[in-house]
Amino acid sequence: MGKRALILFAHGARAASWAAPFERLRDLVRAQQPDVDVSLAFLELMSPRLPERVAELVAGGVSDVTVVPVFLGQGGHVLRDLPVLLDGLRAAHPGLTVRAVDAVGEDPDVLRAMTEYCVKALGAA
Amino acid sequence: MGKRALILFAHGARAASWAAPFERLRDLVRAQQPDVDVSLAFLELMSPRLPERVAELVAGGVSDVTVVPVFLGQGGHVLRDLPVLLDGLRAAHPGLTVRAVDAVGEDPDVLRAMTEYCVKALGAA
Repeated sequence: MGKRALILFAHGARAASWAAPFERLRDLVRAQQPDVDVSLAFLELMSPRLPERVAELVAGGVSDVTVVPVFLGQGGHVLRDLPVLLDGLRAAHPGLTVRAVDAVGEDPDVLRAMTEYCVKALGAA
Repeated sequence: MGKRALILFAHGARAASWAAPFERLRDLVRAQQPDVDVSLAFLELMSPRLPERVAELVAGGVSDVTVVPVFLGQGGHVLRDLPVLLDGLRAAHPGLTVRAVDAVGEDPDVLRAMTEYCVKALGAA
């Protein structure tokens, strides 16, 4: 069985500072999953893009990739762009298993943590 | 003392489905803060925009608005566009107190919940 990888797939932005929370997320997941290759990949504006990152992983012996869309809303990027990218990855790497889960914004625990943050924002008034 | 409002400020998107998690977040916060006017406002592509929403709130007697940027990354939208919008709101409504907190992606508990979601995504493999 080949190595496994987890890709945190984010939008990307012009400002380098934008990526900071995604890098923290990557580091937190890495610390909990030392046997999995955990990395970021972007839709646009930042590197590496998803196809580039997956090609590197496959070259390094990874045979199983899980993609987590680190998006709050499931709009065109998650519902339309990502499936097209995944189809392209499967065509380019026939031996690779690629799976994507729902966007992080769909997770009830993430929503709950955001709710508490909003309520705290009021309390700080 | 006038009424208080909390605005969940999000990017906006073309697909209506995109707003679903933000609407759930609004409903969850509302349920916990029945005395506060909790609503969504958008930077672009969706209505209401932030200035429009604040004008409605002020017309309805709100004197204190807290803005939570429901963004994961703090890029140009949060660091550049939002401060400009806030300055405009303060100029347009001199009697209004407007305050913004950090983006939700900066909150350690939100990050922790996202970490757990990513780890679960691997476990489901």
